[in-house]
Amino acid sequence: MNSKIVTKEQYISVIKPFLIQLQQYFCDVFELEDGIAKFLKDEWHYHGGGGGITRVLKDGPIIEKAGVNFSHVKGTSLPIAATQKRPELTNLPFEALGVSVVVHPRNPYIPTAHFNVRFIIVGDDESNYKWWFGGGFDLTPYYVFEEDCIHWHKMAQAACAPFGDSLYQEYKEWADQYFYLKHRGEARGIGGLFFDDLNKWEFDHCFEFMKSVSQYFMLAYQPIIAKRKFESYSERERAFQLYRRGRYVEFNLLYDRGTLFGLQSGGRTESILMSLPPLVAWEYQPDIYSEEAVLVEYLKARNWV
Amino acid sequence: MNSKIVTKEQYISVIKPFLIQLQQYFCDVFELEDGIAKFLKDEWHYHGGGGGITRVLKDGPIIEKAGVNFSHVKGTSLPIAATQKRPELTNLPFEALGVSVVVHPRNPYIPTAHFNVRFIIVGDDESNYKWWFGGGFDLTPYYVFEEDCIHWHKMAQAACAPFGDSLYQEYKEWADQYFYLKHRGEARGIGGLFFDDLNKWEFDHCFEFMKSVSQYFMLAYQPIIAKRKFESYSERERAFQLYRRGRYVEFNLLYDRGTLFGLQSGGRTESILMSLPPLVAWEYQPDIYSEEAVLVEYLKARNWV
Repeated sequence: MNSKIVTKEQYISVIKPFLIQLQQYFCDVFELEDGIAKFLKDEWHYHGGGGGITRVLKDGPIIEKAGVNFSHVKGTSLPIAATQKRPELTNLPFEALGVSVVVHPRNPYIPTAHFNVRFIIVGDDESNYKWWFGGGFDLTPYYVFEEDCIHWHKMAQAACAPFGDSLYQEYKEWADQYFYLKHRGEARGIGGLFFDDLNKWEFDHCFEFMKSVSQYFMLAYQPIIAKRKFESYSERERAFQLYRRGRYVEFNLLYDRGTLFGLQSGGRTESILMSLPPLVAWEYQPDIYSEEAVLVEYLKARNWV
Repeated sequence: MNSKIVTKEQYISVIKPFLIQLQQYFCDVFELEDGIAKFLKDEWHYHGGGGGITRVLKDGPIIEKAGVNFSHVKGTSLPIAATQKRPELTNLPFEALGVSVVVHPRNPYIPTAHFNVRFIIVGDDESNYKWWFGGGFDLTPYYVFEEDCIHWHKMAQAACAPFGDSLYQEYKEWADQYFYLKHRGEARGIGGLFFDDLNKWEFDHCFEFMKSVSQYFMLAYQPIIAKRKFESYSERERAFQLYRRGRYVEFNLLYDRGTLFGLQSGGRTESILMSLPPLVAWEYQPDIYSEEAVLVEYLKARNWV
């Protein structure tokens, strides 16, 4: 690739095959780790143009539910969730391509993980379009193994290292800010990376960063699944996991930009909400779980590497 | 009561004892219907002034979880959820008093029910305050018994009848509009009554309407609990109930004005989110439930009386 790329179609022709291959790779790894369950595949079309491929694995012995979604949607105007900070882009046509992943393992000792990369291009002709990249990954443990958290963040750091000395710190802090439940005064998990509006480099370099984040996500997560999947647990840990999964639902429906973007743009509801956990419990008086105070303390933003 | 009532304190001194007694009455009835479980009681204080009494029953043989919340909160400015349509009320002190009820029965043949009444008074001195009433009740069945739906709406109609011929129809339609999940293209349930900004009558008359809605809620719901609580059910109906409870969570976190008002005003999170069901399942590919098509068709807005 080089700077001769100028049309929207050319940008997309580079991004799209990468994302489709990435989706397949992720599914392969999760099937391997689960050992039994397989991803189903649903192709769908978006009312404004484009569509997506939704892949869902459920009821595996290791992975209770995983969604790996590819989408390429087109529309005549960006939804509110995407234009709050960019009012000048209202009422312009857009295309959005992305892969998003959420994994809800069965074993409470394996954290839930989330990954997303996306490319958005807005504008109505070739002279005035704008594009940017966004994405990241974050981890939501139920029980904290410090070594796992350090590994996760070391991989996040490694993903960023070739792109600038301060990048990891910047995007790590963004994740800490973003994955925060204001109404609970709690972090969703231990964070990782979060970036948006990325267009400060040339397209090629931004795309390399998307690839790096994508590859390091699996280097961060797969070893944790492999290491924790045979930990034994009891009904108590399971109950605590179901209870804490409630926080995940609260975050996604109250705050998550991707979820709100999707629902506001008339996206495919089943694909957007496949991020929600398979089974969740809400209880009044959470203080019955002594683990909670320990966990919440651990989740406070800190330097892991 | 008469029109001599002029201070905020006098309005509140009339509303508050009624609401506190109402809360106790509701708890009594639900304990009676359950037969075993009892409500716990938590009193709490609000940072801006006032506070509330949260009462929660859980793990009963009939009622899996019920919350009956009284609150009287004060603040220096109304949160966004309450002022979107009233920008002139921004940055004025407010007091809000209300009782809200959510009941999640264990038996999938008993619908989930929700009730709320509230009184809000805004303004900084006695000459320029504004007050209004809001509230209503709505029913969310998992399996539809037409006679129960007709009974529910007949009680809603009876609550409104003394206050004007068109009132039931108006507030019934408002409920149909309000309890609607846009991203699903589905009604939350069969509705009932919804009203807000009510100040078209004198205070006393508005308050009488609040009382009527409160009394008819129990006349609407209690007979349905009593009638359906001994219906036998299998794992299949239970799974469908857990799955459909997901819609309830989606509505409350994405759309519900009371929930968003509470969370935005820094309310007591545990009391606000006690409306969420005790156990919920999200599944991709809901079409495995043949009941769903039947249910969703039934939930389409219609004339029940």
